[in-house]
Amino acid sequence: MDNYITLADIDNLQELIEEALQLKKENTAAEIGKGKTLGMLFFNPSLRTRLSTEKAAKLLGMEVMVMNADKDGWALEFEDGAVMDSTKAEHIKEAAAVLSEYCDIIAVRAFPELKDKEKDEAELVIRGFKKYASVPVVNLESATGHPLQALTDAITISELKKTKKPKVVLTWAPHPKALPQSVPNSFAEIMQKSDVDFVIANPEGYDLNPEITQNVPVTHNQEEALKNADFVYVKNWSSYTAYGQQPKVKGSWTFNEHKLKITNNAKVMHCLPVRRNVVIADEVLDSYNSVVIQQAGNRTFAAQAVLRRLLEE
Amino acid sequence: MDNYITLADIDNLQELIEEALQLKKENTAAEIGKGKTLGMLFFNPSLRTRLSTEKAAKLLGMEVMVMNADKDGWALEFEDGAVMDSTKAEHIKEAAAVLSEYCDIIAVRAFPELKDKEKDEAELVIRGFKKYASVPVVNLESATGHPLQALTDAITISELKKTKKPKVVLTWAPHPKALPQSVPNSFAEIMQKSDVDFVIANPEGYDLNPEITQNVPVTHNQEEALKNADFVYVKNWSSYTAYGQQPKVKGSWTFNEHKLKITNNAKVMHCLPVRRNVVIADEVLDSYNSVVIQQAGNRTFAAQAVLRRLLEE
Amino acid sequence: MDNYITLADIDNLQELIEEALQLKKENTAAEIGKGKTLGMLFFNPSLRTRLSTEKAAKLLGMEVMVMNADKDGWALEFEDGAVMDSTKAEHIKEAAAVLSEYCDIIAVRAFPELKDKEKDEAELVIRGFKKYASVPVVNLESATGHPLQALTDAITISELKKTKKPKVVLTWAPHPKALPQSVPNSFAEIMQKSDVDFVIANPEGYDLNPEITQNVPVTHNQEEALKNADFVYVKNWSSYTAYGQQPKVKGSWTFNEHKLKITNNAKVMHCLPVRRNVVIADEVLDSYNSVVIQQAGNRTFAAQAVLRRLLEE
Repeated sequence: MDNYITLADIDNLQELIEEALQLKKENTAAEIGKGKTLGMLFFNPSLRTRLSTEKAAKLLGMEVMVMNADKDGWALEFEDGAVMDSTKAEHIKEAAAVLSEYCDIIAVRAFPELKDKEKDEAELVIRGFKKYASVPVVNLESATGHPLQALTDAITISELKKTKKPKVVLTWAPHPKALPQSVPNSFAEIMQKSDVDFVIANPEGYDLNPEITQNVPVTHNQEEALKNADFVYVKNWSSYTAYGQQPKVKGSWTFNEHKLKITNNAKVMHCLPVRRNVVIADEVLDSYNSVVIQQAGNRTFAAQAVLRRLLEE
Repeated sequence: MDNYITLADIDNLQELIEEALQLKKENTAAEIGKGKTLGMLFFNPSLRTRLSTEKAAKLLGMEVMVMNADKDGWALEFEDGAVMDSTKAEHIKEAAAVLSEYCDIIAVRAFPELKDKEKDEAELVIRGFKKYASVPVVNLESATGHPLQALTDAITISELKKTKKPKVVLTWAPHPKALPQSVPNSFAEIMQKSDVDFVIANPEGYDLNPEITQNVPVTHNQEEALKNADFVYVKNWSSYTAYGQQPKVKGSWTFNEHKLKITNNAKVMHCLPVRRNVVIADEVLDSYNSVVIQQAGNRTFAAQAVLRRLLEE
Repeated sequence: MDNYITLADIDNLQELIEEALQLKKENTAAEIGKGKTLGMLFFNPSLRTRLSTEKAAKLLGMEVMVMNADKDGWALEFEDGAVMDSTKAEHIKEAAAVLSEYCDIIAVRAFPELKDKEKDEAELVIRGFKKYASVPVVNLESATGHPLQALTDAITISELKKTKKPKVVLTWAPHPKALPQSVPNSFAEIMQKSDVDFVIANPEGYDLNPEITQNVPVTHNQEEALKNADFVYVKNWSSYTAYGQQPKVKGSWTFNEHKLKITNNAKVMHCLPVRRNVVIADEVLDSYNSVVIQQAGNRTFAAQAVLRRLLEE
């Protein structure tokens, strides 16, 4: 593996999932990363992603250096040929090259602004680092994808499935704030690479980018989709067509006990943090069906499997 | 030891003090914490506590991950059944459970707001973590107590005492800001578990919570209290009765050379940071009697002894 | 080596440079720092200096604790005898002594305010730590000097020079913000200790402190200075005489291809971050002549050589 920026960087998904589950079983400190440094660069806040990736790196023997670009006011210039006489102190060319001097792997988080679709889809930050860094780059959630989360999700389904080809439903749920599409995008992508029966349910106006969902059935009828589901991934996202907006929604999409009963006693997933009783009701989150904590725990092993692959190159 | 949230978590204080002093003597890196992670979660700023606990963990071979909840704007919901459609992004149920996936011990700092006594005494944050975490929880100073500081204080007295049962005076001193009662509370508690002659001196209106001071003599006459003192712990706190306020005080309570002379050539203690010439005069802090730096240094060994106990479980 | 606060702390520069280059060649983890802690204290933001010094310490086996005094609002009092009844929470006496309890080496960054020359030259912060710390102190850039950067620069010249005594030119360049003189000061000092033919070119009104430049030729004619140069160090600084100001400059001082052609095919250096097309033109930075990334990479080995010396004491 040369980078881990999109799911396309995985050559054999099943193999990577098995490696992660093996790492989870062993759960011991390794030496492969000794003397190597992971640099984690955050243009946006992070809790789970930071902790799980930091832990994964340390379990591999790596040192970790964290940079909070947002708080340190490290404003980067991305334009070629720019005359840098304003507020941007450093060009991506130097930023990426210099970090490559200090780090053996660079991991970057940069959210979308959700204002200009074209700009967000250009993925300036993560692609800039890929272009100018001389070491592997890892995506800690970019404008349009969150491949470490998606790998965790696939690991969790693989770990918990009881049938060869389970039915997996990704369902939209309400949220007070407009959120990126990165998590559902990457989940939709990885499910298409998995041996599952995959359906997406969301209100009208909330269809994801069709280049990502491709031939996946998309329904606006949540209850119809939930029938016979073995896994339900509940997640909010803002509109892709009315980009970054939250068009009004008919009916209630909060995932509650009533909806759980429609499923085949499904395992309920969410990437966290979750707004209780808005996205998912207490009665579901506190039930045996919820696997959100186990799913969050698997973040460590997903990151560990990816970092080990990058170190092995 | 299952947690270290209050001093009640210590079964045998003298034994723990001796373990800490032994660790201080050895001062070498250990292996017991190898592959284990301490997560330190700060809802308020910290310098000494963070550094000494981080150092203690690393001396035990642990990895340390620091989370600044205050700066990262990680606003937690503590109410059961809350409909989370406002600013609080995560419920304590998930927060504590997820951190337990990444950390082998969770250490938490959460100050009181000093506005609502009942709310502060409910200790929502530290008790929430204790209730929902699946790993041990350490108190890095909560609304009503600071048991790591108190252990340090007991270690320092044990290390320096010249008589079997020294006289120890906790005396109030002025401060420009309203401060919590957590440090004097825990000091008063640990002195009651120690073989000392313990007296508290504070101005009228500044008596600590009587459930904590119990049968300890409390006087409003500082000079009377200081007679024959072997140790003087100087510390400001805001009023408990006029909760969080700073009622006007008669006379001068700054600890200076004149007051030191009343004592039995006492060792002078303070948890730091100390406002020079407000809380304690230069002439005392710069004298041989001041042990505040040695006391601060002992923070490492107090934390190390506690963390080792928690790892041994 | 007892401290690394100014270049005067180096007894034999050539020896130290060779040690750094040897460390660069080996690039392996060492044991000398095992169980030792480096405390890094930032009163101003840092990226390169933090990462390279952190990496250097970890390569030596040290633990690293980072304190952001600026963000944590840790306001120190430096005045002797101050009555601390205002906003400053801790005196340098306690701050330095306490950090010495937790750290085996203390590294400090504290920029000048560029308002009061006398105050900046007093170097209150770094001298305060030196005075009251009981462990070695390292300068991570102070009001008037940046000796770790200067050591890196000398290492880079030593690594790249093709003649016994190369011609080295330090040339001023424009910048939208008023910057400190610390980098050019330390570079001018270390070049005077090196076997080079050294010249400084800057506009009128931008002469550096004559106590630092001493007998170094200073010209206001950039092109004259660049003739036959083997190394060109491009850097902005604010005026020393009109202290901290940016007097108007005649002509263009941006370092571009035209100016590069005047030199002896010189290697172009800069401490980074660099404002492209303001300080140095794209055509130079993207050319084979630019060594700014290699120079930034050498920061690790400069820091490693210094920290190892301090640990050996």
